[in-house]
Amino acid sequence: MPTKITVVFYSTYGTNHGIALHAAEVAREAGAEVRLRRCAETAPREVVDGQDAWREQLEDMQDIPEATPEDMEWADGYFISVPTRFGVPASQFRAFVDTLGPKWQSGALANKAITATTSAQNTHGGQETTLQSIYITAMHWGAIIVPPGYVDDIKFEDGGNPYGYSCQPGPLDETGKKSVAYQTKRLVDFAGKISG
Amino acid sequence: MPTKITVVFYSTYGTNHGIALHAAEVAREAGAEVRLRRCAETAPREVVDGQDAWREQLEDMQDIPEATPEDMEWADGYFISVPTRFGVPASQFRAFVDTLGPKWQSGALANKAITATTSAQNTHGGQETTLQSIYITAMHWGAIIVPPGYVDDIKFEDGGNPYGYSCQPGPLDETGKKSVAYQTKRLVDFAGKISG
Amino acid sequence: MPTKITVVFYSTYGTNHGIALHAAEVAREAGAEVRLRRCAETAPREVVDGQDAWREQLEDMQDIPEATPEDMEWADGYFISVPTRFGVPASQFRAFVDTLGPKWQSGALANKAITATTSAQNTHGGQETTLQSIYITAMHWGAIIVPPGYVDDIKFEDGGNPYGYSCQPGPLDETGKKSVAYQTKRLVDFAGKISG
Amino acid sequence: MPTKITVVFYSTYGTNHGIALHAAEVAREAGAEVRLRRCAETAPREVVDGQDAWREQLEDMQDIPEATPEDMEWADGYFISVPTRFGVPASQFRAFVDTLGPKWQSGALANKAITATTSAQNTHGGQETTLQSIYITAMHWGAIIVPPGYVDDIKFEDGGNPYGYSCQPGPLDETGKKSVAYQTKRLVDFAGKISG
Repeated sequence: MPTKITVVFYSTYGTNHGIALHAAEVAREAGAEVRLRRCAETAPREVVDGQDAWREQLEDMQDIPEATPEDMEWADGYFISVPTRFGVPASQFRAFVDTLGPKWQSGALANKAITATTSAQNTHGGQETTLQSIYITAMHWGAIIVPPGYVDDIKFEDGGNPYGYSCQPGPLDETGKKSVAYQTKRLVDFAGKISG
Repeated sequence: MPTKITVVFYSTYGTNHGIALHAAEVAREAGAEVRLRRCAETAPREVVDGQDAWREQLEDMQDIPEATPEDMEWADGYFISVPTRFGVPASQFRAFVDTLGPKWQSGALANKAITATTSAQNTHGGQETTLQSIYITAMHWGAIIVPPGYVDDIKFEDGGNPYGYSCQPGPLDETGKKSVAYQTKRLVDFAGKISG
Repeated sequence: MPTKITVVFYSTYGTNHGIALHAAEVAREAGAEVRLRRCAETAPREVVDGQDAWREQLEDMQDIPEATPEDMEWADGYFISVPTRFGVPASQFRAFVDTLGPKWQSGALANKAITATTSAQNTHGGQETTLQSIYITAMHWGAIIVPPGYVDDIKFEDGGNPYGYSCQPGPLDETGKKSVAYQTKRLVDFAGKISG
Repeated sequence: MPTKITVVFYSTYGTNHGIALHAAEVAREAGAEVRLRRCAETAPREVVDGQDAWREQLEDMQDIPEATPEDMEWADGYFISVPTRFGVPASQFRAFVDTLGPKWQSGALANKAITATTSAQNTHGGQETTLQSIYITAMHWGAIIVPPGYVDDIKFEDGGNPYGYSCQPGPLDETGKKSVAYQTKRLVDFAGKISG
């Protein structure tokens, strides 16, 4: 039975969308069954429409289903990719997380593997603290945290965030692709071991 | 000129509403000009209406204005009270914070004093990590963080959270009132010194 | 081949010594091969000798070997128990951790399971932040973090710290024993799955 | 009466020594009375002597007095500069902090301003988490945290760590000097306001 991975992301201008697409592709190539899910946009429609780049990004993602609590129950492992807002994940991610209470209470979120990635405007603008915030939440679920550390040499080339790949806004570059691929395969590997 | 304090809270069942009311009262008694503001509810109407206690709490707070970015610019200091969700502040608070981008960019949030309080279902269910998450965000604004530490003896009676008063759900008890009063007066005092 | 667990602790007055002994016993009962190791005392001899309780505790632990980097390489999983000092682990633990550079560089610390426990003077005196600090460090090693979450009902009785069991100073009570036993068995289980 | 600043640093190869020297100089120019203090080396003599660069750095700092608890009581504000070790401050700093118990208990550490800087081998190798760790500890003392945020334009040039200046190992460059100068003057300013 293939390992089941839910890739959950939120993206305003495309950076984390790009990371999530790559992670989903790599996970499938690694033999996992994958659900790619985006966090629902919670900003008011007029705010989104007021910014062309934001509105276009939202249109670009229309075919990707919105994440549901059931997607979290289904998976053996989670790959999370969300941008930083003032040192923590964007509120769209938190709004989704806050719908998980009933699943958490029923034990349906226990013992899942998780790894996370992020982006921030500045090099040190919350790239580390945002990942820690995601892992703190996952610890409440009883998740098994699978950060990349410096286990693979790519971590000495990609900025070296041991908590998860992180970057500044923009398309995923070659180094980023390698790093996300490594982190994804690591997740699939450990999620398989844990759930097996 | 009196020191200006904005008390920002979110409350689902009343605990942080109670803390905020007490903080606002104490700040006024300490000579501050006070704005009491609640974070807008972002959960869908049908979710709120599906729980009597939640709906009633929302009705109880109808007369309190919703927090706006301008309330953050106006103040010399912030008193924050929000419940924990999986180790970090409830997403209603984060949704409000995510509207502060333009004010932050213009420098309007710089050099404000801040202190925070929280509640969690379990004794150690994120009471410390939630406060740290709020302070991390405030550091992005260039705020001056004013935690209570153990400066006053009340901190050896109230559970001893040096990052800010924290409690489990329910009405604020006598010890809680004293602790919140101490933390509020401390905020008013330092906000005054900083802005003076 | 049995799962290999290194229990690493530091204790000034006995609390974390008690937790570590119980964890070591439970791990053995669960079929693990166990090394119980204490962090070397780094406080000057005259400081220790100046406090009877501290000196006696150090004498009580003389038969327990001091932790070495090799003990970290050997294990499949780590059970850590160290007291809080101002919101983070006691410096004796950090002094030991700082000797792990060469092992980390060689990759010898990668892919180990880890779980942690702590104690603090006050209920909210760093019980959560100290555990987060330990996990942050372990993420640098490429460890797999195995917090208890709320997966077992004991977590709703023991103060509910989802990051790991935590308590105030004193002998481990019955609830604490159950919680430490749960967390230990969980570690042995996942360390086995991960290394298998 | 001039504002009193204690600059406390630890340095293995010189990076944080350079930051501390610059901060001390800027603080003096800003009118503060300054004590420059280094954390005592706690690594065994043979370990230090085994690395030429480490031994030479220690010799270079011999004229700088070792930090004492009294230096912490004396000051109105602290400027901290310590390198990262696995996502938190080097244990030499923690060993010093652990000697502050009696001063903390007497209230002698209350209401001091604090700001911190750090260095790490990798861009995202704990530069953010290390500063948070220092601030968590300072909150226990009842300190007033004065991070730089993005209040000055230099923060959009220096890597943008809103918690404090951070860098990779090496001599302080021009941008670093400006950033440290800004952060130091900010500390002197707020320490003066708070203690005045």
